[in-house]
Amino acid sequence: MGNYNRVTAEVIKQLQEIVGEKFVLHDEEKMEPYSHDELMDPKYMKMPEVVVLPENAEQISKVVKLASKLTIPIVPRGAGTGLASGASPVKGGIVLSVERLNKILEIDHENMFMIVEPGVTTAVVQKAANDEGYLYAGDPCSGDSSFIGGNVATNAGGNKAVKYGTTRQQVNGVEIVTADGDIVTIGGKCKKDSTGYSLLHLIIGSEGTLGIITKCYLKLVPLAKNVMDLLAVFPDLSAAIGVVPKVMAAGITPVCVEFMDNESIKCCEKYLNEKLPNSEEGHYIIVSIEGDNEEILEDQCATIDEISMASGALTVLVADPAKIWKARKAYAEADRARSLIFSMEDVVVPGNKIPETVEKIAELGKKYNIAIHCAGHAGDGNIHANILKDKMTDEEWDTQLPKLQHEIYNLVYSQGGKLSGEHGIGYKRVKLMEEFTNPVEIKMMRAIKNALDPKGILNPGKVINA
Amino acid sequence: MGNYNRVTAEVIKQLQEIVGEKFVLHDEEKMEPYSHDELMDPKYMKMPEVVVLPENAEQISKVVKLASKLTIPIVPRGAGTGLASGASPVKGGIVLSVERLNKILEIDHENMFMIVEPGVTTAVVQKAANDEGYLYAGDPCSGDSSFIGGNVATNAGGNKAVKYGTTRQQVNGVEIVTADGDIVTIGGKCKKDSTGYSLLHLIIGSEGTLGIITKCYLKLVPLAKNVMDLLAVFPDLSAAIGVVPKVMAAGITPVCVEFMDNESIKCCEKYLNEKLPNSEEGHYIIVSIEGDNEEILEDQCATIDEISMASGALTVLVADPAKIWKARKAYAEADRARSLIFSMEDVVVPGNKIPETVEKIAELGKKYNIAIHCAGHAGDGNIHANILKDKMTDEEWDTQLPKLQHEIYNLVYSQGGKLSGEHGIGYKRVKLMEEFTNPVEIKMMRAIKNALDPKGILNPGKVINA
Repeated sequence: MGNYNRVTAEVIKQLQEIVGEKFVLHDEEKMEPYSHDELMDPKYMKMPEVVVLPENAEQISKVVKLASKLTIPIVPRGAGTGLASGASPVKGGIVLSVERLNKILEIDHENMFMIVEPGVTTAVVQKAANDEGYLYAGDPCSGDSSFIGGNVATNAGGNKAVKYGTTRQQVNGVEIVTADGDIVTIGGKCKKDSTGYSLLHLIIGSEGTLGIITKCYLKLVPLAKNVMDLLAVFPDLSAAIGVVPKVMAAGITPVCVEFMDNESIKCCEKYLNEKLPNSEEGHYIIVSIEGDNEEILEDQCATIDEISMASGALTVLVADPAKIWKARKAYAEADRARSLIFSMEDVVVPGNKIPETVEKIAELGKKYNIAIHCAGHAGDGNIHANILKDKMTDEEWDTQLPKLQHEIYNLVYSQGGKLSGEHGIGYKRVKLMEEFTNPVEIKMMRAIKNALDPKGILNPGKVINA
Repeated sequence: MGNYNRVTAEVIKQLQEIVGEKFVLHDEEKMEPYSHDELMDPKYMKMPEVVVLPENAEQISKVVKLASKLTIPIVPRGAGTGLASGASPVKGGIVLSVERLNKILEIDHENMFMIVEPGVTTAVVQKAANDEGYLYAGDPCSGDSSFIGGNVATNAGGNKAVKYGTTRQQVNGVEIVTADGDIVTIGGKCKKDSTGYSLLHLIIGSEGTLGIITKCYLKLVPLAKNVMDLLAVFPDLSAAIGVVPKVMAAGITPVCVEFMDNESIKCCEKYLNEKLPNSEEGHYIIVSIEGDNEEILEDQCATIDEISMASGALTVLVADPAKIWKARKAYAEADRARSLIFSMEDVVVPGNKIPETVEKIAELGKKYNIAIHCAGHAGDGNIHANILKDKMTDEEWDTQLPKLQHEIYNLVYSQGGKLSGEHGIGYKRVKLMEEFTNPVEIKMMRAIKNALDPKGILNPGKVINA
């Protein structure tokens, strides 16, 4: 593997025959948006040799068969909102965007499923569910622009994972195009299935390296009648995060528990040009709870208030969800506005290890004299640490960042953690993953990749180096 | 693959050195219980060449390395309560029982996990959780005797799957011994993980064909304060099962919804020698609901009562759980008492297809003049159809059963269903699976099996013929 052929004029002609001339892009200006995802560090960007915009699974099958015959890399792409350089054509070849597969195909009320094409925006899925009285519980921060196919391919996490799990738990089936160009439906509308190995869960989170998703069977759940958001502000982050297990132990399962450290809050405040509560010194915990019964919600609110105040909270507010979620979701954008180049780490640790991990990450920031803003999903141990390049030179950044990352990952693994909670490995973390993951796991993943994509044409250079 | 070596006296000696003389069984009388699972049809039984009872993962690793070096099959075994002949050594070789790995290693209150060895009985796990105020939500009908390792290896379903999912959803990590004899932990205590392919979900439900489970990280959830069981009796089965989507649509998520057809009820009544309500003509729906708030539970009860009566129920009772669950769980034993040899089908269909499927299965029973008793998990579309041999000759049984199974499976697949909801493929269904599953899926599963177990030593002849 690894010896790929180039996209020639003849290949472009054949691609045009498959998807139509209009849907094959090969001038640099038009291809530029397809050369990267949300990672704007030049080392993760690469110009595609050609971009194709197929209309359906049959066209994708033909493109894959052509790429397989000619041993040309093929990089499936959703909305490009990824944060791990999973959609960047690092080995060259064809970028295959699913943006034209953008239809909601079915809402099945009796079985509570929605079947959609991969190019439907997550927010469109959410709204279509809400309009019928359902919740689609996948809710990544990028949902306004991300595609559902990308959510499934990366097993996106997000803001409802504490109660509902990540995207993995929302998906009951997929249609994929395999590395051979076969179209196959895996899973579907059966709620249980023990018929052989779980290919479904293997595809979910495989970042386009084992198959191209062309249809998603999404679970719908009843929409809760009431949602309530609480903001608890603490003078120190450890106390803030320490309330999470206490809330759980009180028998409350929140939809989510988010946290933002003071540096992140200040950065968002500046970016949004809006005063945020206690921003001078506060660290935030945002708790969302939901249910059909208002009384119970109010009881839960009171319990969370009590637990927070007893843990040293400065204040606990029933928050204006529009305002507080705007701040939380602006976290990455605010950092980007301050420093176009930054590394967003996505580590995950067992829940009770968050306070210590966040504290030690802050110490590492000081040691390296690099700004690190922490926020993320306190309810499930997933810490986003934005490491900002700020005014560092490229040389400084390129020497300092890997050293700092290594110290962070060593710390995280010593806590029983992992290097990605929800953003995936992509190209960005492929070497780091090999370094920090048990070699037996790496051997198993590599064996699977080679078994299902023996020519290595599907999104090469991502997740695992085959 | 497929050319296996025999277990010689020299191999037995080496096994004795690894696990101790006392823990290597090789006389037929002692090995007999290890020659089959709950399937008592002689065609699924096979005497092991040797049985080993290791004490820990290190010993299992050594046994696997020996078996790998000599190309001898190795069949991992839990409590032998399987229903698909997954633990029978159909290609000969070593049966490796995990019965001595029977310790609860840790209950982690802060992160709400229990870590156990695979030979702990499911009921012991459940009780240990309950004693600490938690629920372990895996609950197969065989839980009083099944081992947790077998539950994980087969992705066991059971009686709480509607609300909590199958065993897959209860497991956050495993330690396994691979086909090479490596010991590796996959997953663990992190609640989210997007660090490469989901090896965890690949191992869960792989029936010992991809690795031998030596440790399980189980999720604990808060134990609900109140549980209530309702029994609704209907004059016809379609109406009975038709209430399920109506209950769901009313915003109620029951813990489980079970059904029993009238033939099953009569059979259980006779077996238990106990009068069951409306057994002359009734078909049962058993609904369990749970929650912390009694008022809400009572409201839900009233709603289920209303829906059931409006759907033609004869009666709706708050059931004595001991009595009603005893009947439901006696279903298989009652059929076994009537006919030692029977085929328990485990089909699964989309929820709204259950009534039609069950009706047509009954018609097929009439067509073939074979008794079929249906019961199972109405809440998740999983239908158990016990096909009874009764007084048929072996020849009749061997010609009639496959024909009937083919008609049932054709029916199920035409409804978007699958051939196993929770019992797995094992040896019993391996050929039927190949026949009814999309060849692309079969190709993918076979590629994975060959990639992770190239010598084919792990539980050969099960799930997929490599």
